[in-house]
Amino acid sequence: MPDKAIRISRAGSDRSADRPVMLAIAGDSAAGKTTLTRGLVEALGADQATAICVDDYHRYDREERKGLPFTPLHPDCNYISIMEQHLQLLATGQPILKPVYDHATGLLARPELIEPRRYVIVEGLLPLHSKLTRACFDVTVYLDPPEDIRREWKVRRDTAKRGYTNEQVLAELERREPESIAHIHPQRAHADIVVRFAPITTRRDPPDTPLSAELLLRPTIRHPDLSSVLGHDDQHALHLKMMRDEIGRPVDALHVHGYVDREDSEMVQKAIWGDAGVEAPLPATLGMLDVGHSYPLAITQLLLLRNLLAAG
Amino acid sequence: MPDKAIRISRAGSDRSADRPVMLAIAGDSAAGKTTLTRGLVEALGADQATAICVDDYHRYDREERKGLPFTPLHPDCNYISIMEQHLQLLATGQPILKPVYDHATGLLARPELIEPRRYVIVEGLLPLHSKLTRACFDVTVYLDPPEDIRREWKVRRDTAKRGYTNEQVLAELERREPESIAHIHPQRAHADIVVRFAPITTRRDPPDTPLSAELLLRPTIRHPDLSSVLGHDDQHALHLKMMRDEIGRPVDALHVHGYVDREDSEMVQKAIWGDAGVEAPLPATLGMLDVGHSYPLAITQLLLLRNLLAAG
Repeated sequence: MPDKAIRISRAGSDRSADRPVMLAIAGDSAAGKTTLTRGLVEALGADQATAICVDDYHRYDREERKGLPFTPLHPDCNYISIMEQHLQLLATGQPILKPVYDHATGLLARPELIEPRRYVIVEGLLPLHSKLTRACFDVTVYLDPPEDIRREWKVRRDTAKRGYTNEQVLAELERREPESIAHIHPQRAHADIVVRFAPITTRRDPPDTPLSAELLLRPTIRHPDLSSVLGHDDQHALHLKMMRDEIGRPVDALHVHGYVDREDSEMVQKAIWGDAGVEAPLPATLGMLDVGHSYPLAITQLLLLRNLLAAG
Repeated sequence: MPDKAIRISRAGSDRSADRPVMLAIAGDSAAGKTTLTRGLVEALGADQATAICVDDYHRYDREERKGLPFTPLHPDCNYISIMEQHLQLLATGQPILKPVYDHATGLLARPELIEPRRYVIVEGLLPLHSKLTRACFDVTVYLDPPEDIRREWKVRRDTAKRGYTNEQVLAELERREPESIAHIHPQRAHADIVVRFAPITTRRDPPDTPLSAELLLRPTIRHPDLSSVLGHDDQHALHLKMMRDEIGRPVDALHVHGYVDREDSEMVQKAIWGDAGVEAPLPATLGMLDVGHSYPLAITQLLLLRNLLAAG
C-alpha cells in the first residue's frame, strides 16, 4: 500500500544517508512480534522498510534438535556470533545473505539476500541478547504479554499454521519455560519500550473490547512529551504515570485501555504525530487486527513509528 | 594426517595472530583447483587450514539458471558483494555463514559455519574477480591449463561425478566459452603465480610421464631465490628463465618437466624448503595424484606452501 505509507524527507538529518534506522522487537514465541512488525512495515511502506526475523539463525533443524538438551530459545541453539555480525552489517547499510529457517518443515533452507532499506525491523526471540546486538539498534521494544494470553495465542497459531496438536504445544511451552525465563525475559530490562497487551482484570468490559495496552517508556531514548495532553488519573481510559520499573529505575507508563473512545484516541494520536514533525497524514493502516480494529494497538504502533522517524 | 603436516611456530611474525594467511586459487571449471587445494590442506594439516569454494556464492540454482542469459561463470550469476564481504570477514579472522551450492543436485542448500583457521584457501571461478576480493589475499594463484587438457579433465569429471553425458559437457563448454574469456581469463593477470600443467609438445615422452609444470612467478610477492640453484638452459628438465608476460611485465618462469629425475627434483625442493626457514621435514604428501605421483606437482605445491609460510 505505498500510497498510504509515510513519505518523509530526511533532509536536514545528521544521520549518514546510507545507515538505516534499526528497530528491535524482542519477545517470546507468539508474543505478537509478527503482527506488530507487519503493521509497521505497512505504515512505513514496503519500499522503505526491511523486516527480518532472527529466529532464522537457528543452528540446528527440528530433527537435529530432538537429540539436544536445549530448545530454540537457548543462545547455544543459535548462531549468535553470526547474528551479531549480520546486525552490524545491516546497521552500517550493508547487505547480508541471511539464513532461512522454514517453520513449516523445520528445515534450514537456502539463504536469502537482504539489502537494508531506510528502516530495518528485526524481530525474534533473541535480538537483544548481547551487548553487540543491542548496540546495533536505534529503538528497542520488548513484547511482554501476560503468560496466559501468550499461551492462548501460541496454541491458536501453532495448531492452525504449524501443524501441531494442542497437547504438543502445551508440552513444548512447559519444556521451554526455564529457558524463556533464563534467556528471553532478561531482554525486557534492555528495551526502550516494553509493550503489554492485556485485559484490564479489574473491569468487566464486553467480550469484544480490544486488549488494553500498557507501554513502559524508558528514558533511554527521547519519547514524545505526552505529559501535557494526558493526565495521570488511572480511572481515565488514557493516562500517563511516572513509576519505577522492577529494578527501581524511573519510567513513564502509558496506559491505553481497550474501552478508550475515538475522540480521546485521536487526541493522543495527533499529539504523538504532531511531535514527529512529519507532513504526511496519519497512517491509515494503524490498529488493524486480523479481525477488527484496536485503538491501543494503533497508538502503540504510532508511538513506535514516531520514535523511528525521530531516530532517522 | 596431522603427524605428517607442518607444525610451525609463528613466533617473531609481525602478523596479527588472529588474522589468517589467505590464498586464492582461481581458474576455470576443471582446471585442477580442488586437487591442488586438497594437497595443500593435507600438507598444512586439516586443523591448520580452512578450504572454501566461492562457487557456493551462486545466486541461482540449476533450474533457475535455465531461463537466464548467462552461465555460472558470469559475475551476475553470483552474489559477488556477499563474496567480497565474506572474504573480508575471513581475512580479519571472523567467522562466516557460507552459502552452499550442491553440485550433485544443482540446489542451493543450508549454509555452513566457517571459522577461519591459520591458513584459508579460497578456490573457485571468481576469487580474483574484483579489487576488493584481491585485497583479501596474501598469495594468489591462477590455474591455466591448455584448453584441450582442461576439456578432457572436465568431461572425465562431470560424466563420472556429476551425472552428465559427454555431449552435455561439450555443449556446456561451448556455451561457457565467451564468459570464460570475459570473466575467468582476466584473473590471470592478477595472480602472483600462474600455474600451467601440460605435456611438452616438442618431446615424445612415454605415455605415463607426468605433465610438466610451468610456473610464472610475478614479482608482486617475494618468491624463494632459485636463480642460484637453477640454470636457464631450457634443455634441462628444471630451469628458470626471466621473460616478459603477455603484457610485457618481467616475470620468472620456472619450468619443471615431467621427466625430471628424483635427484634434481629433491635438490630444488630442498632449496625451496630451506628458504622457508621451517624446522619441519619436507611434507610427505606432496605430489600425490589419484593415481601415481608427480614431481612437477610436488614442486608446485611446495612453492605455494613456502609462500604461505613466508606470508604468515
